[in-house]
Amino acid sequence: MNTLEQQIQFIIEIDKLKSVFRKTSLFYSSRKENSAEHSWHLCLMAMVLAPYSDKPVDISLVLKMLLIHDLVEIDAGDTFFFDEKNRDAIKPDESQAAERIFGMLPEEQKNEFYALWKEFEDKKTPDSLFANAVDMLEPMLQNMTNQGGTWVEFSVTKEKVLRMKSGIRYSSQALWDYVLTILDKAENEGFFSKN
Amino acid sequence: MNTLEQQIQFIIEIDKLKSVFRKTSLFYSSRKENSAEHSWHLCLMAMVLAPYSDKPVDISLVLKMLLIHDLVEIDAGDTFFFDEKNRDAIKPDESQAAERIFGMLPEEQKNEFYALWKEFEDKKTPDSLFANAVDMLEPMLQNMTNQGGTWVEFSVTKEKVLRMKSGIRYSSQALWDYVLTILDKAENEGFFSKN
Repeated sequence: MNTLEQQIQFIIEIDKLKSVFRKTSLFYSSRKENSAEHSWHLCLMAMVLAPYSDKPVDISLVLKMLLIHDLVEIDAGDTFFFDEKNRDAIKPDESQAAERIFGMLPEEQKNEFYALWKEFEDKKTPDSLFANAVDMLEPMLQNMTNQGGTWVEFSVTKEKVLRMKSGIRYSSQALWDYVLTILDKAENEGFFSKN
Repeated sequence: MNTLEQQIQFIIEIDKLKSVFRKTSLFYSSRKENSAEHSWHLCLMAMVLAPYSDKPVDISLVLKMLLIHDLVEIDAGDTFFFDEKNRDAIKPDESQAAERIFGMLPEEQKNEFYALWKEFEDKKTPDSLFANAVDMLEPMLQNMTNQGGTWVEFSVTKEKVLRMKSGIRYSSQALWDYVLTILDKAENEGFFSKN
């Protein structure tokens, strides 16, 4: 198999991400979002919201990270954000998935993709913190248009949301302030569980 | 409405692209592809296939173009590639759609998005030629895994495919050579109409 044919096989393989469904639904909708269209949406959010990052970001790297960040779900499945136990338990599986899926590419591209995925997961650089921030923001916006969405469905408390989404603060004070206002609205609407 | 709230409204609006369906189906599938997940897939293809562009490309610009290139379909709908008459007829509608949708953003971002979309449509720069090349390549790869897909469904001739996809040649000789080999295979499989 030559290099191009190898890359085409990767391109065909990743199509499977369109059949991995998230817990959250599209805006004003009950149709669950798949992880491919979700990744596209996060990229657009990053383009539009980049000016709110407290530190300058390299938008090219942010987009690349967001484009590939969920590819491991092809093998490892989507993990529900508020399911804290499972989130930790699946880490090894995701590494194996990254090895297999990125490993379909020629060495140099494999290394580039793996490094991007690792940077996203490690949440240490301004680029990855910002990419994670938009990833955390999208489902909150969706829930706001869906009568509370997964917050209601899984009886989530406001405290848990605040704690688990607090990473947004490390990327952007402005976006965090915005999150606080929508969570207040959500509380007033009765979208959160009391305990 | 402050600037951030205005941008959030844009982010919610573009969710509609996930409900615009193309004529082509996912790989090895009869499920039609929507234009949001399609845009995501093209970005991954661009990341992987950029080395085949005959002229160097700015991958950041290519990704941005691909992310937004179909947003006008929210108002104008998806036009089937081989429907040449309609393709020309809808141009004015797409400009109006671009005005309305990008016009939801603050002035500076509106201008950036509009310029990216125009550059993609004009097909004059190496970046836009390459972005258009991957846009033309994806459905061919899909048809190859779907017993000819839209070629069979709409009785398309090999000559028409060669003519309408020839733009790939202006971006990448290597990808065009690859296209010629898969179209030969498709012909042998009997996927094309004889007239």
